Amino acid sequence: VTPQLPCPLPVIGHVRTPYAATEDTPVQSALNPGVTGVLELDPAYAAGLSGLDGFTHAWLLCWLDRSGRAAGEVPALTQVPFLLRPQGKEMGIFATRGPRRVNPIGLSLVRLVRIEANRVEFAGVDLLDGTPVLDLKPYVTRFDRPDGEPRCGWFDDVPMPDGVTPARLNRPVAGPDEPGPAT
Amino acid sequence: VTPQLPCPLPVIGHVRTPYAATEDTPVQSALNPGVTGVLELDPAYAAGLSGLDGFTHAWLLCWLDRSGRAAGEVPALTQVPFLLRPQGKEMGIFATRGPRRVNPIGLSLVRLVRIEANRVEFAGVDLLDGTPVLDLKPYVTRFDRPDGEPRCGWFDDVPMPDGVTPARLNRPVAGPDEPGPAT
Repeated sequence: VTPQLPCPLPVIGHVRTPYAATEDTPVQSALNPGVTGVLELDPAYAAGLSGLDGFTHAWLLCWLDRSGRAAGEVPALTQVPFLLRPQGKEMGIFATRGPRRVNPIGLSLVRLVRIEANRVEFAGVDLLDGTPVLDLKPYVTRFDRPDGEPRCGWFDDVPMPDGVTPARLNRPVAGPDEPGPAT
Repeated sequence: VTPQLPCPLPVIGHVRTPYAATEDTPVQSALNPGVTGVLELDPAYAAGLSGLDGFTHAWLLCWLDRSGRAAGEVPALTQVPFLLRPQGKEMGIFATRGPRRVNPIGLSLVRLVRIEANRVEFAGVDLLDGTPVLDLKPYVTRFDRPDGEPRCGWFDDVPMPDGVTPARLNRPVAGPDEPGPAT
């Protein structure tokens, strides 16, 4: 059983998703656009959603409570990111998007599907069921899209197939009937 | 003097910027691309920057410690965002990017200029000098850029001139020599 790291901040709600284990959860929301989840906002905060229906996308900031770290433990500063498991290559944690961070705060871009009272249905899921949510911010192109074509370091050199999970990146050698990650 | 909200999370460093007061600080990093700041990472975390030099952009997640809220105070769930001051129009806080949130965590997209030891120089500044930093994540186009042209709610209908500050949005009526916000 994965230990849960208590959240020291007020939680505005929780997400409901189909995923119960990190190893079987797609590594990024953008790689899993066909699956939907629901943010169940604490009803006390529902009035804060006013105006959000005019947006197509939003950022979920979540407390990654099952990132595998115990309270008070400092994560390793260099780690093998999920997407570099096949190569076994380490990166500094501030050059990764992995969950084992000094502050395990996840940043997920989601597409807004439906907002009803305190429920926000969204598409693009990379979160475990029950993950506590810290904030919800609208995506604003003018603020959130860099000019030109950004360079994205090691991400520019690895395959990122849709729906990929940590478990699926766990095989350095493909079996005869088991294709490796697309290149 | 603005009260400071203590940060209940470990702080990985602080930003050095030219700004000492919220009212005179550009409201978004993307609207202030010509100004640079420095993230002074706690030297204990410097190894976490390994690999970041391959990226052109990054997200700063900061604890907005001078957002004008006292400890334990719940912010109003609808507020007039800085950019809607001329109209005096309120929005739900989850449809704004303003700092007075349940969790005052700022999300700033910055351009990386230079990384040396524990110092990360960046362009695009919307933070007060000394703001505590919670996390630094690389910008990854595949994860962070939505397909197509997102709708951005009320932001699509307001002018967002470069360098705009809350103080400059404070005048509902322009004087004869003082042009109003560009339309």
